[in-house]
Amino acid sequence: MSQIYDRVALIGLGLIASSMYWAIKRSGLAGEVTGYARSAETRDTAREIGLCDRVCESAAEAAEGADLVVLCVPVGVMGDVAAQIAPNLKPGATVSDVGSVKAAVIEAVAPHLPEGVHFVPAHPLAGTEHSGPRAGFAELFDNRFCLIVPQQGSDRAAVERVEQLWQGMGSETEEMDADHHDLVLAVTSHAPHLIAYTMVGVADDLRRVTDSEVIKFSAAGFRDFTRIAASDPTMWRDVFLNNKNATLEILGRFTEELFALQRAIRTGDGEHLHEYFTHTRAIRRGIIEAGQDTDAPDFGRSK
Amino acid sequence: MSQIYDRVALIGLGLIASSMYWAIKRSGLAGEVTGYARSAETRDTAREIGLCDRVCESAAEAAEGADLVVLCVPVGVMGDVAAQIAPNLKPGATVSDVGSVKAAVIEAVAPHLPEGVHFVPAHPLAGTEHSGPRAGFAELFDNRFCLIVPQQGSDRAAVERVEQLWQGMGSETEEMDADHHDLVLAVTSHAPHLIAYTMVGVADDLRRVTDSEVIKFSAAGFRDFTRIAASDPTMWRDVFLNNKNATLEILGRFTEELFALQRAIRTGDGEHLHEYFTHTRAIRRGIIEAGQDTDAPDFGRSK
Repeated sequence: MSQIYDRVALIGLGLIASSMYWAIKRSGLAGEVTGYARSAETRDTAREIGLCDRVCESAAEAAEGADLVVLCVPVGVMGDVAAQIAPNLKPGATVSDVGSVKAAVIEAVAPHLPEGVHFVPAHPLAGTEHSGPRAGFAELFDNRFCLIVPQQGSDRAAVERVEQLWQGMGSETEEMDADHHDLVLAVTSHAPHLIAYTMVGVADDLRRVTDSEVIKFSAAGFRDFTRIAASDPTMWRDVFLNNKNATLEILGRFTEELFALQRAIRTGDGEHLHEYFTHTRAIRRGIIEAGQDTDAPDFGRSK
Repeated sequence: MSQIYDRVALIGLGLIASSMYWAIKRSGLAGEVTGYARSAETRDTAREIGLCDRVCESAAEAAEGADLVVLCVPVGVMGDVAAQIAPNLKPGATVSDVGSVKAAVIEAVAPHLPEGVHFVPAHPLAGTEHSGPRAGFAELFDNRFCLIVPQQGSDRAAVERVEQLWQGMGSETEEMDADHHDLVLAVTSHAPHLIAYTMVGVADDLRRVTDSEVIKFSAAGFRDFTRIAASDPTMWRDVFLNNKNATLEILGRFTEELFALQRAIRTGDGEHLHEYFTHTRAIRRGIIEAGQDTDAPDFGRSK
């Protein structure tokens, strides 16, 4: 794979940025990669493990002279970071981000960017329940989608270059508008995460079932919820606060359906339950056929 | 490992029974294993793949002369099957089961068993989203708990032999009373399954987000829900109908918590959300430390 950018700056050095760095290096996609993290401890860690060619002492310094600046910070601080780097952006540079919410990020970031800078929001659908600079690995994006949300009047060449970068890091890219992105993600990610957090909280709170029982007997389905509910708290707080409407809409639908199933249980309507469960099983089949998971019979078992 | 029973009968040849067969053979835990499935097709498959030393044409025939008979059928038909085998049980034999619900199964099965037969209900906390006679594999129970629910006046020797069998198949055993079992499982398994089924149903139902988008972009959390929601519909219908009270109680608690988090999102109470998510993260840590999952950063990625 050939070099796509001379200089890339990664602002925020958590799971996504650190994985981007290793994926960029794996394929030689950029000449130099600078990085910045707000916490001195994270910057020290980055230097220690060789994360980024150059770790800078400010976001503005990292962004200076970069052809691409990627904001990899929690959604709630994207606007502040954009304001910090704006004066140092070089004309013709591209700014992108990796936030899980798009409309709110665009609203927060776009006003700060000077004329002549291209804004190409993006969202890689990849992650693990780990976070921080040590959590990254080059393969995180392999075979995962990265959604690109071009802005009105986006320079097509700038958009395509961002897409090439993600493809070079192993992803498949797809373009989508911001509102649709936020609705799709509310369904496939944001509502499921809130539900998992809730269920884990309930389990922990239940006095008649001890913590140790919940933990010991988690293999029976609950374990996958705990995995989801172990994701970064700051990131997820910001996601929910910034994709409020779509998330609340989906949760409303969810509650409605859950009440219908609870009623079926209460009244002993086995037919309704069986029909519902048969239908949902078919959706799983579709996901396996789409190559987004394997059919291996190792439910909940990691290697 | 030495032989624990001369003759074991497996009634119902799905994922659990077929895994038991391979696990028994792996360690030579029984002399002969007979099997029976209601459907002729399943019996044919079993004969074809060498599942069971002898596949019988009735449950009674399979149970005849067995030292241990394990009911591996959906919870809703345990009572019927117990009635069918009762006349053929040999004096001193042990009857066990693998149902995910214990109080209702005991109530359905116990009255049919003749005096002199030991009833030792059990529940292996292991499974995959696949079902049927071809789904089994010898390693399914390795390092998983099997809960044993001894009955009042259970013969201790009979209980311990069942425990030895499960340990021989790779499990760790633990004794528990039926009501507590049903509550613990409602938290760690039954409620999470219903929630996963519901969320997958909602996603599918949402016309503005096409099926293909839900499937393509499932990597972001939703995929784990679809895996859970792909489990056997008949088994799960019976679980909910037979663990009605505990499941509805936990779902009630769940809804209450979910409403509180929804309110926090609506009012923008980031502190509440952050605190909640930080707390649930700690629970995950406990599960990893208990050896019930690994810390490998491959969230949602199967091999």
